Amino acid sequence: MEQKKAYPAKVYLNGEILDADKARISVFDRGFIFGDGIYEVMAQIGGRFFYGNAHMKRLKTCLQKIDIDFDVDALEAEIPSLLEASGLKKMDCLLYIQVTRGVAPRQHSYPDGIRPTTMMYAWPKTLPDIVSKGVSVVTREDFRWSRCDIKMTSLLGNVMANQYAMEQDCYETLFVREGILTEASHCNVFFVKDQLVYTHPANEFILDGITRQVVLELCEKIGLEVRLQGVPKAEVRYMDEAFLTGTSTQITPIREIDGFALYEDSMGPVTRMLQEAFLKKKSAKG
Amino acid sequence: MEQKKAYPAKVYLNGEILDADKARISVFDRGFIFGDGIYEVMAQIGGRFFYGNAHMKRLKTCLQKIDIDFDVDALEAEIPSLLEASGLKKMDCLLYIQVTRGVAPRQHSYPDGIRPTTMMYAWPKTLPDIVSKGVSVVTREDFRWSRCDIKMTSLLGNVMANQYAMEQDCYETLFVREGILTEASHCNVFFVKDQLVYTHPANEFILDGITRQVVLELCEKIGLEVRLQGVPKAEVRYMDEAFLTGTSTQITPIREIDGFALYEDSMGPVTRMLQEAFLKKKSAKG
Repeated sequence: MEQKKAYPAKVYLNGEILDADKARISVFDRGFIFGDGIYEVMAQIGGRFFYGNAHMKRLKTCLQKIDIDFDVDALEAEIPSLLEASGLKKMDCLLYIQVTRGVAPRQHSYPDGIRPTTMMYAWPKTLPDIVSKGVSVVTREDFRWSRCDIKMTSLLGNVMANQYAMEQDCYETLFVREGILTEASHCNVFFVKDQLVYTHPANEFILDGITRQVVLELCEKIGLEVRLQGVPKAEVRYMDEAFLTGTSTQITPIREIDGFALYEDSMGPVTRMLQEAFLKKKSAKG
Repeated sequence: MEQKKAYPAKVYLNGEILDADKARISVFDRGFIFGDGIYEVMAQIGGRFFYGNAHMKRLKTCLQKIDIDFDVDALEAEIPSLLEASGLKKMDCLLYIQVTRGVAPRQHSYPDGIRPTTMMYAWPKTLPDIVSKGVSVVTREDFRWSRCDIKMTSLLGNVMANQYAMEQDCYETLFVREGILTEASHCNVFFVKDQLVYTHPANEFILDGITRQVVLELCEKIGLEVRLQGVPKAEVRYMDEAFLTGTSTQITPIREIDGFALYEDSMGPVTRMLQEAFLKKKSAKG
């Protein structure tokens, strides 16, 4: 059950820490006019950001991909004060970070000499040790752009796909590109067949999720063989297991795809093995 | 020569008319977080909005496409006060309108019971009678989504493509999808060959521009035969003429594509004929 959404206590905005209802930006922010920004979400678990360095590295890479010149390290240094002000120091929580190109009169191309807008907020969230309840998902043609490797805020396509899932009482929509399952609207997807673990390669059709990377590490550690290839939609019913990965999704078993039930149990044995290894990893990081 | 970009005098925001630097929205506006909004730009010429009804109709249609329930007519009724406050009553100007889904704690799917955010501003702009100077354009693979018929604010792909043109001292980037030229980053594109006028059909790969529609009307009126089909990139050099259309671009001749000069003159005869008819249309509407 999804927790009821609420505004966070505090918002960091361009160097200031404000009450959420005081955090306001210009309507000429290119984040508002063009969706011209990059974001990250990461989890603090046991007093540390889980794979925090990987998240910060991806933020840097994505900003570079769209030519926003920005000092991510300086922003990272502001996180402790935000957590302190939010009453979340060392507490389990999620942190949202957004950097846009900045404020300028509307023109499509990148304006010179503007300062990026930076916004962050954290909210309490204790992620479950093990996500035992499987979810239902639907599939849909991937109508998004072909630079899904960029974690941008121009997210209308993802929003529409997520809504599509909700309207069918499903947790997620899996995208299909030329017959191949790529990723979901805000998660990555894995399949298991005959002890082999399948996930789409990290090319321009998917966002290379940090949890995806952790799961691939765990597969190697456990000795599970991985195939970096997308599964054709037509072969879904021959799969033994399937699961989603993501920062707040963690490793969530998929029980049903387009109404087809993958298994009777809550999850398959490989998913369970990975979940247990993931839990150890989280504890070790703490 | 592009006019220097400046902020407008006044901004209409959710029922209020404010100085531009006072027009601020919540960081939780879904326009800022998700690019979850629709926009329009239209021109007031000779005291009337040129094809204003068509723009308003498209705004309605696009809002419906993304399930934003909004009273466009009520917003339209606010335009005169904005123009008055901006000192632009009956003056030649451009009007920008943006409607986002509204403000809510971040979740991908559409939140219930929120009120759309509405923002508009106008700035003085006298469009030239005839755009006689041709522009250079470049081509690039269309990496955007396949719902380009939705005039959304998740525009990072268009922004990147426009920047790509600017970096090569070009006016626009023409997108190529499976070998076919579709549209540009903020214009439509037309070609002329042997007195036939070609433009991409209004499907999900292009935004059906109002100026595009006007040009098609003019072709019919003049007796120019139209083929609603995209021109293959490979055939560009066999074209007699090419031009861009858009609200502020009007009918702008394309002189050069990827460094290949289409003609020596400023524009071809069909482009000129359409420009003259377009000018008459603008005057008639005034």
